[in-house]
Amino acid sequence: MAYKNEKLHEEKVFKDPVHRYVHVRDRVIWDLIATSEFQRLRRIRQLGTTYLTFHGAEHSRFNHSLGVYEIVRRILFNFQDRPHWDESDRLLSLCAALLHDLGHGPFSHSFEKIFNLDHEVFTQRILTGNTEINKVLERVEPGFSQKVADVIAKTSEKKLVVSLISSQIDADRMDYLQRDAYYTGVSYGHFDMERILRVMRPMDDQVAIKQSGMHAVEDYIMSRYQMYWQVYFHPVTRSAEVILTKILHRAKELYGKGYSFKLKPLHFISFFKEDVSLEDYLKLDESIVYYYFQLWQEESDEILADLCERFMNRRLFKYVEFNPHLQIREWMELHKLFQQAGIEPNYYLEVDSSSDLPYDFYRPGEEEERLPINLIMPGGELKELSRNSDIVEAISGKKRTDHKLYYPDDLLEACTDKELKKRIYEILHGQGGHVRAE
Amino acid sequence: MAYKNEKLHEEKVFKDPVHRYVHVRDRVIWDLIATSEFQRLRRIRQLGTTYLTFHGAEHSRFNHSLGVYEIVRRILFNFQDRPHWDESDRLLSLCAALLHDLGHGPFSHSFEKIFNLDHEVFTQRILTGNTEINKVLERVEPGFSQKVADVIAKTSEKKLVVSLISSQIDADRMDYLQRDAYYTGVSYGHFDMERILRVMRPMDDQVAIKQSGMHAVEDYIMSRYQMYWQVYFHPVTRSAEVILTKILHRAKELYGKGYSFKLKPLHFISFFKEDVSLEDYLKLDESIVYYYFQLWQEESDEILADLCERFMNRRLFKYVEFNPHLQIREWMELHKLFQQAGIEPNYYLEVDSSSDLPYDFYRPGEEEERLPINLIMPGGELKELSRNSDIVEAISGKKRTDHKLYYPDDLLEACTDKELKKRIYEILHGQGGHVRAE
Amino acid sequence: MAYKNEKLHEEKVFKDPVHRYVHVRDRVIWDLIATSEFQRLRRIRQLGTTYLTFHGAEHSRFNHSLGVYEIVRRILFNFQDRPHWDESDRLLSLCAALLHDLGHGPFSHSFEKIFNLDHEVFTQRILTGNTEINKVLERVEPGFSQKVADVIAKTSEKKLVVSLISSQIDADRMDYLQRDAYYTGVSYGHFDMERILRVMRPMDDQVAIKQSGMHAVEDYIMSRYQMYWQVYFHPVTRSAEVILTKILHRAKELYGKGYSFKLKPLHFISFFKEDVSLEDYLKLDESIVYYYFQLWQEESDEILADLCERFMNRRLFKYVEFNPHLQIREWMELHKLFQQAGIEPNYYLEVDSSSDLPYDFYRPGEEEERLPINLIMPGGELKELSRNSDIVEAISGKKRTDHKLYYPDDLLEACTDKELKKRIYEILHGQGGHVRAE
Amino acid sequence: MAYKNEKLHEEKVFKDPVHRYVHVRDRVIWDLIATSEFQRLRRIRQLGTTYLTFHGAEHSRFNHSLGVYEIVRRILFNFQDRPHWDESDRLLSLCAALLHDLGHGPFSHSFEKIFNLDHEVFTQRILTGNTEINKVLERVEPGFSQKVADVIAKTSEKKLVVSLISSQIDADRMDYLQRDAYYTGVSYGHFDMERILRVMRPMDDQVAIKQSGMHAVEDYIMSRYQMYWQVYFHPVTRSAEVILTKILHRAKELYGKGYSFKLKPLHFISFFKEDVSLEDYLKLDESIVYYYFQLWQEESDEILADLCERFMNRRLFKYVEFNPHLQIREWMELHKLFQQAGIEPNYYLEVDSSSDLPYDFYRPGEEEERLPINLIMPGGELKELSRNSDIVEAISGKKRTDHKLYYPDDLLEACTDKELKKRIYEILHGQGGHVRAE
Repeated sequence: MAYKNEKLHEEKVFKDPVHRYVHVRDRVIWDLIATSEFQRLRRIRQLGTTYLTFHGAEHSRFNHSLGVYEIVRRILFNFQDRPHWDESDRLLSLCAALLHDLGHGPFSHSFEKIFNLDHEVFTQRILTGNTEINKVLERVEPGFSQKVADVIAKTSEKKLVVSLISSQIDADRMDYLQRDAYYTGVSYGHFDMERILRVMRPMDDQVAIKQSGMHAVEDYIMSRYQMYWQVYFHPVTRSAEVILTKILHRAKELYGKGYSFKLKPLHFISFFKEDVSLEDYLKLDESIVYYYFQLWQEESDEILADLCERFMNRRLFKYVEFNPHLQIREWMELHKLFQQAGIEPNYYLEVDSSSDLPYDFYRPGEEEERLPINLIMPGGELKELSRNSDIVEAISGKKRTDHKLYYPDDLLEACTDKELKKRIYEILHGQGGHVRAE
Repeated sequence: MAYKNEKLHEEKVFKDPVHRYVHVRDRVIWDLIATSEFQRLRRIRQLGTTYLTFHGAEHSRFNHSLGVYEIVRRILFNFQDRPHWDESDRLLSLCAALLHDLGHGPFSHSFEKIFNLDHEVFTQRILTGNTEINKVLERVEPGFSQKVADVIAKTSEKKLVVSLISSQIDADRMDYLQRDAYYTGVSYGHFDMERILRVMRPMDDQVAIKQSGMHAVEDYIMSRYQMYWQVYFHPVTRSAEVILTKILHRAKELYGKGYSFKLKPLHFISFFKEDVSLEDYLKLDESIVYYYFQLWQEESDEILADLCERFMNRRLFKYVEFNPHLQIREWMELHKLFQQAGIEPNYYLEVDSSSDLPYDFYRPGEEEERLPINLIMPGGELKELSRNSDIVEAISGKKRTDHKLYYPDDLLEACTDKELKKRIYEILHGQGGHVRAE
Repeated sequence: MAYKNEKLHEEKVFKDPVHRYVHVRDRVIWDLIATSEFQRLRRIRQLGTTYLTFHGAEHSRFNHSLGVYEIVRRILFNFQDRPHWDESDRLLSLCAALLHDLGHGPFSHSFEKIFNLDHEVFTQRILTGNTEINKVLERVEPGFSQKVADVIAKTSEKKLVVSLISSQIDADRMDYLQRDAYYTGVSYGHFDMERILRVMRPMDDQVAIKQSGMHAVEDYIMSRYQMYWQVYFHPVTRSAEVILTKILHRAKELYGKGYSFKLKPLHFISFFKEDVSLEDYLKLDESIVYYYFQLWQEESDEILADLCERFMNRRLFKYVEFNPHLQIREWMELHKLFQQAGIEPNYYLEVDSSSDLPYDFYRPGEEEERLPINLIMPGGELKELSRNSDIVEAISGKKRTDHKLYYPDDLLEACTDKELKKRIYEILHGQGGHVRAE
Repeated sequence: MAYKNEKLHEEKVFKDPVHRYVHVRDRVIWDLIATSEFQRLRRIRQLGTTYLTFHGAEHSRFNHSLGVYEIVRRILFNFQDRPHWDESDRLLSLCAALLHDLGHGPFSHSFEKIFNLDHEVFTQRILTGNTEINKVLERVEPGFSQKVADVIAKTSEKKLVVSLISSQIDADRMDYLQRDAYYTGVSYGHFDMERILRVMRPMDDQVAIKQSGMHAVEDYIMSRYQMYWQVYFHPVTRSAEVILTKILHRAKELYGKGYSFKLKPLHFISFFKEDVSLEDYLKLDESIVYYYFQLWQEESDEILADLCERFMNRRLFKYVEFNPHLQIREWMELHKLFQQAGIEPNYYLEVDSSSDLPYDFYRPGEEEERLPINLIMPGGELKELSRNSDIVEAISGKKRTDHKLYYPDDLLEACTDKELKKRIYEILHGQGGHVRAE
């Protein structure tokens, strides 16, 4: 039998707390999971620094990737024999679902920012480069790895397949909302996925939802909103993220200045140089990062050592509400005062902003075009979700932004110049911002 | 106010998926959690290699330690004003609960075996040595760290306090059964803890259970039995454990022989020498282990490199049922055949045995004396559980052992001497053992 | 010891699927539960006809009443020693919580409409009349039954106590949302009650919520919205309700006309006369109603017999969207056409409207004034919820109404005048309304 | 298309809290659910008097019947294309699953005992008599109703089909354990049904279980054991059952003696005469029973009135441990003492015994032969469960019996003859039996 159609002798299952079981029948999927590039995802946490806020959030991207695969498998089970669905796209869809996060490295957000990387580029390189993954995919048929890459990059012409993993209500989002809720233990993140799967219908270029399932979709959108504000944008998590970013920034700067590390940071050098090979990229998992951070606690550069010690031992920055756009003057004064206090503001003073657009329909020409969620009305016509749902209409297009200023309260407390200290706290507290304890 | 009685201004909570919330009011507890030695537990998985079998089992000992603390907190809440309970033992109990696993290192079982360590000794050293933990505890009152250490070591004269965290139905077991079930997603491990907590009563030297709660205890014992055989002794997990042990064994052996590692294994040297300082011990967390295993994949020693590659990429050994006590001749022949095939049996052939004694009552003089679970009968007298429960009596003292032989099927498959290969497989399969697919 | 302070020798618990356990320590509460008037609530379903749509919704008002009591018990446990809270109001609050639904009869909504009743009036009469409940309450202290009645009637000057069971986020709503979700099995209705309980604070005349719990409250409001539209206003349930109302209407009309029932409807006569004694009211539980409906299936009046047969065997009316305000002409024509078809429109054609106002703040002078939910901001000031929550603001004051026309599709199908039938269906379907299958 | 193969235009679903959704595609199943005989099951509680102990246990047999159907549907989904399975038995299996409890009346156990009935006989009569159910089944094919009846009666030669709903691990048991656990809220009753369904394999004359699923089966057996002792045999439930039986007994006796009831008990007369027509049987649902019990509270016969008042208002009998086989002398003395005290022992003194045999294998010739659960070993041979499972072996064939004596404590308390009263309590308490509070 052709490799692409080969089935395992017995179905294999993974016990999964979110979907109960993940089922695998296709040899291709089984072989992909067994590759070193996919196993590597076990060493990268799904939620980066979030475990420092929610101790349960220690789950990996491996965990999530299996989940996305399983959801797509269930969707396609329901799609069999439906119009618009081409069963020969099944394996392509499953592979894209399984591999969509393949290019993620540790703490992607911070690494990408400091080292000018893009995990999506690395996903492409892993799929099409000299990797075990690529070998499996090319065995399916020559050129198959590129097809999978195109689906993940959203450049594929198979728009229906693309929408399964990249749309406003795709398998990726449905898995992570539930999974992240499960592992953190928050009570948000629940919605009736089984119902949504039952009302999904393949259309020409997108998955649409039968109108009778609208309320389950509303619930999903609200879950998303709550998870963003309660978990993903949690200020304690962002505080850890700020410190992490500063560590990377400092290490890169020191390297640039020719600083001599006690142990040569071999794994980081190509990152510092912003010239990262695929091989180097794949080696850098979270355990490597932690290894260096532990070492760097003992570096002679005080800033690097202090920041690493903070990160490893969770001695995070405090925060207050602060909008630098409105408070330019205060911002500039704080900068100066920190310098006077001997607390380097470039590393110890940061404003971080989060924003979320819970659901938005297509606005042609906008920077980030989003596919709307379409409902299939009883008569058969399509209607954009927010035109049918009061709730969604109410929150549609509402962008909410939250600015916070992060700073090391312990260093301020230790400041001996009482006048200086008093003035700093005046600015921090005087603006109506309240120092919220963790 | 004395530090020992100091309360936080506002109660702090940790969102916990198993107990919903972990509540902290005491400043001492809050300060203990913030120490670097306690934060280090975030970098040590609760279930070692189990995540290679159950992908959800990625949770840390930090996670579990908070859970044990929370259970004891709830037990003591119910104990207030009951006879036999001395409220002044509250803080001691909470600290012992929180810190009972403090001395665990990464993959404790394998490390202890190869490097002659004992995590309980390190728990004692961390509590009483020059650590942040020790400073917090001594602030409570001089000598308090030793008191906590005594409770954890079971040498304390406060037997009731000891029994809260070390008995057949203690907070430690109640937490890990539920927590490990939650993260792996298995359906075992559930029992009505709320009911058990409600029927626990402090007695002179032990916690006892009101007879009306007997069925909840039966359920707990069955949970334990199922978790042992379904999760803790799972042969795939043990296969990973076998490989891990072999890696440590090989690295130590190579070091002993003066082998020159590409990068000097600084973190391991005192382990190889079996002379580990507290400082060295605390540095060695799982990320350090993974760092070295990644490096060692590129060592010139083929056995070390191969074993590390297997561990990192989950290319595990296969297994068959095998009892070396009954099958001495086969065992000796296999050893020889492996050598002939060029597959070093000391590293590629291993029998691993598991056994569990689900519940046993006290038998004076036995090696490992176990405290029985006592029921408080309606009239007030105590009665040992198995004398009242058919279920427990039925399984009481039943020791079950399971022997499995682990070997690298891929290497055997690649063996070119057909006769040799055939004979090896005859022994492996001929003994009624069936090669169970993972 | 005074009866009001008497505690049970041992705490009693009820196993409850929603709150795990309901705990009772007070003898007064235990005695109230044992009265015949409270036990009667076991024979009245919490959700009336909803079980014909969601088969799980068979739970009684007894079930719910215990739940409301338990939530108030937990709230008050947290209130101990807080400012504004007077511990001597504890028993009053618990009694009011337990007894707030005492006056409900079977299918309250329909009965009240047809027989001009008000269950709140009967709650008052049961509390203060010659009942077992009254005896227990008066034993607490003379006049106590009136105090409880005042709290339930919202006329008590103890506004804080009133707000525990009658406000936009009270124990009543929190219990029924969760309980009804549990028994129906829908995935809505979940919110983090434990968190809400932790952030509730007694204020001068109302319970307020700490701002840090705002998101849990948002979730509660969304739950409420979803439960209304998914469960409480479900058109199939309303279809059963329409039939039930028509049965009562018909029986009353027949009685008024001197129709001779095969068996004299003794339990109903005072209802028909709209002069119901307390004793008669307490006797009429759901089993009595079902008894009569079963008998009436065999009455000679065809309309009554047919409607009862429909209700008992769930042969419900179909429905289409229909707004009689906008479609007056169609409505009048339908009426006439039904008469021509021999299908009595007064019993077989009905428009039912549902509406919900998910959250609204206080607007002085409005018919139904609603207390707003107030947040306690970090500085201590109160802020109305919708002024702080984007989500709530978005849906605040949005009234949504849904009109549906109910009719017996089987009778129409059986109509032999093809022209007539065609015209009826034209109106039913032609207005854009789509006949939604159940 | 033939009726037997007809599919609904769109799949219908019932929201079910235990199985999430119950799915119906076959028109036959849809039509069966809509019959009056099946809808009647909504008016019969699954667990009779258990709701008086566990207030959540208010669910009906309708609820459970849908659940059994759904489990069989899922089993058969997995059986497709497997050896031994004949797909043409699918509809037969589904109908038998759905209808297996069709003949149950209210409080079956007591009614059958007092009125010499057998619900299994009525199931047969409903299936094959002049009923709506029969009409639907005969439309499938002439004689089909008898085939369904044979499967339910276990007389069918299609042993594999029979074993789906009547064996030691059938859909019936799997549904009720989970469902009863869900509604009562107890923490027992959970097992991994999804896993069991995955390892069920059709064999020649029975369903067997793959050995890899053994632990899930062990868990199921333990669930069953716990549910029996914790829920089904709960002494409070049995106390209510005792009173119920006494009511029926008394009413029958009074009728036999020509007692004149205030309202002629029309629905009961054929029961009293032990000559019940199918029509009469179908009319007698729980609401009818409650109607009469309410009326009878006002009968002039004091025993009947008192017993009814007890049942309606949950004024139950107390109980002590009592084994009449061992305590014959005490039993006879008690009888006499009760008579002296004016408390009629035939109605106010009862011993009730419960026993359970949690799992037993086939013992030829025994009264109640039970099919063993067979495991399919890796090599393919079958092995009886208890020969492979330590746990099951341990409890296999262990019969446990529990005897309790029930009596009205309030009447004894009110007894004015102090000597008599003292002696009665001496016997009740003196025998080691302890009066357990409810």
